[in-house]
This record gives sequence, structure tokens and C-alpha cells, in this order.
Amino acid sequence: MSPKITVELLRQLRQAMRNGKCIAEPIQAYIIPSGDAHQSEYIAPCDCRREFICGFNGSAGTAIVTEQHAALWTDGRYFLQASQQMDNNWTLMKMGLKETLSQEDWLISILPENSKVGVDPWIIAADQWKNMSKALSSAGHSLVAVQANLIDAIWEDRPARPNTKLIALGLKYTGLTWQDKITALRGKMAERKISWFVVTALDEIAWLFNLRGSDIEYNPVFFAYAIIGISSIKLFVDSKRLVDPAIRQHLELDSPSKPDLTVQCFPYESVFSELNAVCAALAPKDKMWICDKASCALTQVIPKAHRAAIPYTPLCLAKAVKNPTEIQGMKMAHIKDAVALCELFAWLEKEIPKGTVTEISAADKAEELRSQQKDFVGLSFPTISSVGPNGAIIHYRPLPETNRTLSLNEVYLIDSGAQYRDGTTDVTRTVHFGTPSDYEKECFTYVLKGHIAVSAAVFPNGTKGHLLDSFARAALWDSGLDYLHGTGHGVGCFLNVHEGPCGISYKTFADEPLEAGMIVSDEPGYYEDGSFGIRLENVVLVVPAKTKYNYRNRGSLTFEPLTLVPIQLKMINTDLLTQKERDWVNDYHRKCLETIGAEMERQGRKEALDWLIRETQPIV
Amino acid sequence: MSPKITVELLRQLRQAMRNGKCIAEPIQAYIIPSGDAHQSEYIAPCDCRREFICGFNGSAGTAIVTEQHAALWTDGRYFLQASQQMDNNWTLMKMGLKETLSQEDWLISILPENSKVGVDPWIIAADQWKNMSKALSSAGHSLVAVQANLIDAIWEDRPARPNTKLIALGLKYTGLTWQDKITALRGKMAERKISWFVVTALDEIAWLFNLRGSDIEYNPVFFAYAIIGISSIKLFVDSKRLVDPAIRQHLELDSPSKPDLTVQCFPYESVFSELNAVCAALAPKDKMWICDKASCALTQVIPKAHRAAIPYTPLCLAKAVKNPTEIQGMKMAHIKDAVALCELFAWLEKEIPKGTVTEISAADKAEELRSQQKDFVGLSFPTISSVGPNGAIIHYRPLPETNRTLSLNEVYLIDSGAQYRDGTTDVTRTVHFGTPSDYEKECFTYVLKGHIAVSAAVFPNGTKGHLLDSFARAALWDSGLDYLHGTGHGVGCFLNVHEGPCGISYKTFADEPLEAGMIVSDEPGYYEDGSFGIRLENVVLVVPAKTKYNYRNRGSLTFEPLTLVPIQLKMINTDLLTQKERDWVNDYHRKCLETIGAEMERQGRKEALDWLIRETQPIV
Repeated sequence: MSPKITVELLRQLRQAMRNGKCIAEPIQAYIIPSGDAHQSEYIAPCDCRREFICGFNGSAGTAIVTEQHAALWTDGRYFLQASQQMDNNWTLMKMGLKETLSQEDWLISILPENSKVGVDPWIIAADQWKNMSKALSSAGHSLVAVQANLIDAIWEDRPARPNTKLIALGLKYTGLTWQDKITALRGKMAERKISWFVVTALDEIAWLFNLRGSDIEYNPVFFAYAIIGISSIKLFVDSKRLVDPAIRQHLELDSPSKPDLTVQCFPYESVFSELNAVCAALAPKDKMWICDKASCALTQVIPKAHRAAIPYTPLCLAKAVKNPTEIQGMKMAHIKDAVALCELFAWLEKEIPKGTVTEISAADKAEELRSQQKDFVGLSFPTISSVGPNGAIIHYRPLPETNRTLSLNEVYLIDSGAQYRDGTTDVTRTVHFGTPSDYEKECFTYVLKGHIAVSAAVFPNGTKGHLLDSFARAALWDSGLDYLHGTGHGVGCFLNVHEGPCGISYKTFADEPLEAGMIVSDEPGYYEDGSFGIRLENVVLVVPAKTKYNYRNRGSLTFEPLTLVPIQLKMINTDLLTQKERDWVNDYHRKCLETIGAEMERQGRKEALDWLIRETQPIV
Repeated sequence: MSPKITVELLRQLRQAMRNGKCIAEPIQAYIIPSGDAHQSEYIAPCDCRREFICGFNGSAGTAIVTEQHAALWTDGRYFLQASQQMDNNWTLMKMGLKETLSQEDWLISILPENSKVGVDPWIIAADQWKNMSKALSSAGHSLVAVQANLIDAIWEDRPARPNTKLIALGLKYTGLTWQDKITALRGKMAERKISWFVVTALDEIAWLFNLRGSDIEYNPVFFAYAIIGISSIKLFVDSKRLVDPAIRQHLELDSPSKPDLTVQCFPYESVFSELNAVCAALAPKDKMWICDKASCALTQVIPKAHRAAIPYTPLCLAKAVKNPTEIQGMKMAHIKDAVALCELFAWLEKEIPKGTVTEISAADKAEELRSQQKDFVGLSFPTISSVGPNGAIIHYRPLPETNRTLSLNEVYLIDSGAQYRDGTTDVTRTVHFGTPSDYEKECFTYVLKGHIAVSAAVFPNGTKGHLLDSFARAALWDSGLDYLHGTGHGVGCFLNVHEGPCGISYKTFADEPLEAGMIVSDEPGYYEDGSFGIRLENVVLVVPAKTKYNYRNRGSLTFEPLTLVPIQLKMINTDLLTQKERDWVNDYHRKCLETIGAEMERQGRKEALDWLIRETQPIV
């Protein structure tokens, strides 16, 4: 991986920062967040401004350019990758390390007095704007909204915004009509005396209207906004997308069944002016919900007296708690996905000794096998297919220049998943096709112990995910080891593979209590820079737990694995497992064999079944 | 325990809320927090306003009185106690339960439009003022500062503010002179470009000046403020206290060694006017530190442009990380304390069968035995001596009307501690003098497993205490049990038994990373309302841990128990322990025997030694 050469780009950007054509008055620093106008985690190529300016293409990171400096903040998953993708014009700011300055503190430490720091108000979230603005003001600087994006101004061949075909999902997949969802949402609004709700997150809009698109790779969403009132529904989406009769019928555009369930459609770009119009007509007591992670630009349209900023929206929570149809779909998706992944491992075992399988070809094979499964739509994120030292790059993606050959001598880590019409998958397995070293096995076993500790945890209703995070680390910590990422994230149902508002992380940010029906990942790891990476990830469903007692009738919860792919026994040092942990592994493998074995038989995949039977033998 | 009759008091308070003599304009609600003007947890009798108005005398709680309603918010430790101490004019608001409204939401739900809510600005912390004020404003109400306290206005026989003799602590106890501490503090101020620091917490002032008092029962502090500048030291304390030559010499009042280490003394009450004067003379760039938990009244004296509000002060952190002299003192205090407590248990065993020992007489005996130990000053909190169902009242304090007799049939819980000149102790043991039931043993053993899980935890440098809280609960959670309080709090050195900024709790509020030298408690519990209470508490020291590996050279930490009192084996169901847990118990008991046994021999306490030898037999 060779770094992007950024000398010329930085020169142009700095010129734009001083230039009267681009900007009302010169700014001394410009912030380039990684998001789009919807604060999406995965973004369309036209929105990859941070990557364009610095070269780093991980999913999280913020660049700041001043007259003299250029720095990029990212988290532990990306330290290695960012240092390889950026040239020496850039300083890597490693978030989460004690010595690393925050963006605010760094700016304050280097800016001349009374500096102006610019940012595109559509790209920065309202809460980030507020924090940054406050910190800068307290040091005598100011944060200013730069309406024309300065990266766009210097980006000559910037791609166009995508505008893909929409698909409508029926009850068979969603369990609820969009009308039911709107009615439930209005119930929540009435409870809190809210008259309007501005929806800006793309996955919330897709979920609410039971629509999907493919504007952003891996995420079946489409560029849109929605403004939901107590008796009106405004959808902002390119009108070409609404020509399709199936979509018109789904949204009842031509014959609405009820006046308050009539969808009014507006062009995507008109959200600003239309929101202005709605705000101008507000009654004195009207309150409008908007997520505090929505763009600063849109948030500031709503007068403060009417604005009820919330850390996450009721749609975000409703979407996180899957209904029975969605749970059934997620289970089915994971069964199909497991068939494909088991086939991959059986195939790799045969092919690797020939020396022809690479990280890229293995990832391609995984995609090919998944695509044979029913209702396959695409991948849910770029496959992390990594051999040996590449495995230590937490969010590695194989490129021709980094591509290693799979062998009998190195650990192989594959973190992959797919979108099916019935659900989204995300699974990581770490395997060795020869003989792993004692150290590799030891580390793998600590990671496995952490994975089991979370998966088998029983905890009271109302517990937040961050209280489970240390369970995943205890075995590693005991030996002085750790990993620098959270343990789990929410997973959408034929939606984004990362979603809020719940998760399992040492970070306590926006962490809503776990509830039965939520679906999260359980993915501890261990990474030895330059040698190998280990991660073990299942997607798990929050389910009620039966306990001996029931303190204050609170009830208890636990997890049920949806991912059913064998964990390689060869990597486990069974001496390090307790009897309970051995039982967990054997129970898990029995379930893999029963459920996935039955599906393989149904699909007539004999070779994979033989592999599955062998890989699910009990530990004694 | 019979509830306080509050009809007449509430009538008078409501009259004062409307009365032009007490207040500029009528208020519709009055908030009575539990603190004093220093936001102390334990308070002097003259400051027990919340207890005066509602009867509930626990250490945490806020009362709010409106024209029609009166409600008290407190946490899980106090649900039972508060419900017993308050009459039916009061509604108990159980904090931490999902269905309980916050104070703000409750006020908004019941107040008429455009209400005024009053509070004494000296008693409410600045951060609480801010949150409350914001929430009320957003609903059309306002929070107003009522300068004359309305409780004081109706409290006829309110006690005077205490003014006890000060004692100066020498280097032997403190390890650092107050001059060293001021110099270190100024170093921190210079690092952050801070010119002034307003110290309002009583334990911070006592620690900084190496002085102690006894103004507040159990807490060796004295009423004072301090304003520390880069070259000046202003101490606000009653002048009568400065007559003592030992104190004059300690503070070098008559012959300061250096100009910038000269202590200027002012009357306690003049802090407001003197702070005003300091603020009037500030240079444009001067910044002043004040804790965001300091009183709203004092905080608002500092102009916003000069105010640097911090969640905890550098003194709070410096005080939390004990120096070698303080650690040595804390160890010695815990050894002496253990001798006294072992003697108590040996005595109880003999006396209980006679049927004459009560909760109160056992607590008195514990105090008597502690008072025989060197450098004993007093108790560090009211002894919780509780039998059977009283044990389920988490912060129970035996009173004549609740006093139960210790017997061979019920569980006995004693949570007690003392102040010695060299350190502060806090220990809980739960024992049975007859035969505990299987269920009592089972619950005790889960609590013990939690205690061990925390005490033996190994975790990376920089870990916050809240990430360890679930370790204490996992065994209880597995069986559907839990406890509604945090697992541990910071402990002062001959200072407050509860101190910040670290702790071990599911609440993440103001939780600074654990560091070697910090001292916290480890005290999981289980409480069965109406039956029994179990808690097992050691004070533990954060120490570096030796680990097999050392990921990214971060280093690891663990805990060393300072409390060395046997854990009653009779209460343990050893079948529920793992081999590691059994080893922990045996190692702990070996250390108790060695360390406390040696001290008992030195003190010639033969009977207690026999008891100790018997109680520390290894589990096989």
C-alpha cells in the first residue's frame, strides 16, 4: 500500500481557505469529517472527501488542515492502515491513547489568536458542531460554517450522487406495513407532545417506508429525507425514483387510503426550503424532533424554541428491536450465510495446498458462494480477507499491492457478511490450515473465552451493553493483552451492518439498554502488529433468559447466536477452557451441525456437509 | 421507626413559598437538596434541611415541595429506610427504576404553566443548577435563586454551625508538606494556564493544608474555603480557629518562609465578597478553576469568560492517588482496625448465646474495641449493625425502636469503619452465629464470587472503574439476582470515607481511570427485603500487576486488599466456588493470619488470636 501524494492537493485546499471566491473571509483551519449530509458511516464515492484529501479510506476519521499542519484522527482499528495510506504531510492522531490531543485541544494548541475554523455545516453533526464551537470559543477562536464545500471546489473529477432503483419490501420481509410504522411513530410523538419529526438518517427512512435502494455500496439505502407530522408525511427523494409503478403502488401515491397517510413527495434538494416553510408555520407550542447527530445545517433551520434535539430517534430504537418476522428473516439469512461460509472453508482446505489462493481470490470465492444463496443482494461490507500480518490491520481490505497468498503457515482471518432480502449477516472466523503456534492458539483461546463470556452472559433487563464489554476482555487482560475496539455493534435487518442505539463497547456513548429482539455482534479480538490478527464474531439475538431466581421481577436477558459457523478446534488450547466453556463450544457446534447440516442436505451440498460434520466434533 | 409528621412543617414552608417577607415573588415549587454549601455528602446538623422537612435522614436524597405535592428522590440503598421515615404527605421517588420520573420531568408533569421553581443557590451545585434550569426553561418554567433559605426560615431550633478545634498533621502522616502540595498544584495550574483556583470541597482544603477538624461527624474536615493564586493563598476560616499557636506555626502565619507561600486568612463568610474582589481585578486572559460541583452561588460570581469549570479538581485527583506515606498509614490503620473487628467477632460468639447483645450494643462494642487502638480518632461513618430483615435496609443505622437482638438464627451484617490519624477504614462482614440456610449460603457465595472477581481482576492501565462493575455482579446475574448500589467508592486517608474521582459503579459519572496508589472499596451485596442482607466489603489498593505479556507497553493493574478480616467460611457453599476462587480465599486468609496475627501477638490479644487462627483455616 503506497501513500497518497497530497502536496498539491493541500496547496490547493490552503489556497481555497484564503480565497475570496470560495469563502467570505479567510479561515485558518478546515475540518473534513468523514460523513455525508446524513451522517452515514458508509458513504457514496461523491462524499469521500476525507479520503480524497488525505488518502486514508477507513470508515471512521476526521481530517483537519491548517495553514501549516494536516492531521487525521482515527481509532485503534485503523492506526496501521492510516499510517500506510497517508504521506508525510499528515500527522496521524491515534484516538483512545492517553497522549493524543483531541481535535479541539490540538487546534487550540497550534492556532494563532482569534482564528476562524471552517467546516461544511451539512457534513458536521449538530452535537459535534456544538462541542467544537464551544471549545474553540472558550479559547478565543470561532467555528464558522463554510457553505460551499472546499474539497468539492478542488475535486476535479468528483463522481455524481447515485440515484439507484428503489425496491419495495412486502410484509413477508418487514412484518409491519409502513403505514403501521408511521402510526406507531405518531403514537410516540403524541406521548411526548411532538408535532413534527425530521428524519435524516438513511437507514431510518428506508426502514420506515419499507423501501430499499443501493445508493451506498453495502448499505441498501437511498438518498432521502423525511418530515413526519401528526397528519402529514413529506418524503424528499429524486422524482425519477417514483416513476416505477411498484413504488407508486407501495407508497399509495396515486390513491392514498387515508388523508393522514398520504405521502407528499418533494425533490431531495428541497428539504432545506421545505423545512424552513414548515418552521415558519409552527404554532407557539409546536415541538420538532431532530436527532442531535443530524447535520448542523438542517438542525439550525429549526428555531431553538421549537427544537427538541434527541440523542437517538424513536425510529432508531424501533428499528433496533426486531419484530418476529424480522427475527425469522435474520435467522434464515444466517443459515444460508453459514452454508456459504462452510463451503468456502471446505474449498480453501482443498485449494490452499496448491498455493493459488490469495486474500482476494478467497474473498471473491466467498462472494460467489454467498451469491448462490436465495435472496442474496450483495455484500454487507467489504470482505476483510487477511493472512498473517495483514490480519493485524483491523479493518483491512485486500488490494492487489497487499494481496498475500493463503498458506499452511499463517493464520487466516475472514470477516465478511452479506445482504439478503430477509436479513443482514456479519461473521468473523480465524483459522489455520497448517499447525498454529502455541502462542497463536493461546491468544485465540483468550479471544474465544471472551466471546463465550459475552455470548453466555445473563444480565438483568435494562442493562446497557457497555456493562458487558469487560466480560469479553477479562481473559486477555489476565495475560496483559487487550484489543483496541469495541466488542459489538447493532446489526440491521436487510439494512446497515452497523446500527444504533445499542452495542457492546467500553465507550458509553449513546448506549441504550439491551432489550429482547435487539441484534448485536459479539466480536472480541487480538492483534499482534506485524504477525497476525485474531477475531471471533457471531451475530447474536437478545433473548429472555430463564434464571433460578427473579430479583424484583426485573427479568433477565441473554444472547442466542444467529451465526452458526464452526469455530476451528485446531486453534483452541482446550486446557485453557473451563468445563462450562467446553460445554458451550460443544453445544454451539451441535447447533451448527443440526441447523446448517439440515440446510446443506436440503440444498444437496454434500461436500460442505462432510466438512461440517468433521468440524463440529465435540471436544472431550 | 415511625415516620416524621410533616403536615405543619409543609404548611409553613408553603406559606413561606408565597410570602413576600421570605421571597421576592411567590414560587410554585421549592427544591431542598441534601448538601451543604460545600456539596458535602455528610453534613453538619445545621445543614440537615432535607431531613428536617421530610424526616428521611439517609446520606443522599433531594426533596421537592410544590403547592400540592411533596416528593423525595433517593437511590436503591435507601428505598426501605425512606419509606419508613416519611409520612404519607411524601411520595418516594425511587431513582434507578425505569418508571421513576426524574426531578425535572416530575416538575414539568405537575407544575402549572410558567411556574417558578426556587432553590438556595449555595446548596445546589452549579452543574445541577444548569441541568435543572435548562430542563425547566424548555418547558416554559424557570429556576430562581432564593437567597434566604426557606427551611431555615421555618426551622425554629436550628443548631449553630460547628467550629471545632483544628489539628495539624506532620510529614509522618502526610508524606508531603502543604507547601509542597501548593507548589505541585500551581504546577498543574501553570500547565493549563490557570491563574486562580477556588477550592470549595472541605476534604480538598483539609488535604491541601494538612489540617483536620471535626465539624462534620465522621469526616475530619472543617468549614473553610480557599482561593489559590499563582502567588497568593487565601484561606477562609473562622479566626478563632487560628489562635492556637500550633496551627499558626503549621501555616507559618507569623513568619512565612516565602512570599508566595504566605497564607492570608479571611473570615469564612467573606468568601463571596473576596471572590468578587479577585474577579474584579482579573486580567483579560485570566482563567479561574472551579469545580462544576461547587455551589451555584459561588460559581456565578466568576464571570463566564474567566470561568473554567472542571468536573473534578486537580486536588481531588492528587488526593485520590495516595503517596507512599499515606499508603503505609492506610495499611497500618487497616491492621489495627482488623484486630478490633476480630476481637468483636470473638466476643460476639461468646455473648450472643446469652441473648443480651443487640444491634446497638454490638456497634458500641465495635467502637469501644476500635477506640483502644493507637491514633483512633472516631468512627468514619455510622455503624451499620443489622440483624435479619434490618440487613436488607442497605444503609441501616440501628435506633432504639428498630434495635434487634443478635441470635443464632439470623444473619448479622456489620458495615463499620474508623478514622485513625494514619488512615480511614471501611469494612463489611456478614456472618451467622448458628447455621445459615442453604439459600443464605448460596446468596453469600455469589456475593463472595463477585467480590473476588473484582479484587483479583487484572486490567490495563487507564481502565475506568465502571468497566469492572459487572465482574462483581456476574455470579448474581447468572441466578437472576442483583444489588441496587455501586460496587465501590474511593476512600480518603484520614479523610472522608467516600471520595472521588474514582470508583467502581455501573454509573459512569465522573469516573477517572484507576491508577496505582488509588484506594477504593470492593463491596458487592445481595438484599432480600424482609429477610436478610449480605454485603462483603474490603478496602483495596490499586497496584501494578505482573502479567505474562504487556500489550503496547500499557502495563496492568490489580488490587491488593488492605482490609484483612476473615470471611466467615460457614457462610460459603464451597461447591459453588472454582478452584481459583478457593485459592483466593485461602491466600487471603493466610495473609489475614500472618499480618493480623502478628499484630495481635504484639498487642497481647490472645483470645482474638485463637479466634483468628480458627477462622483462617484453609478450605479443602
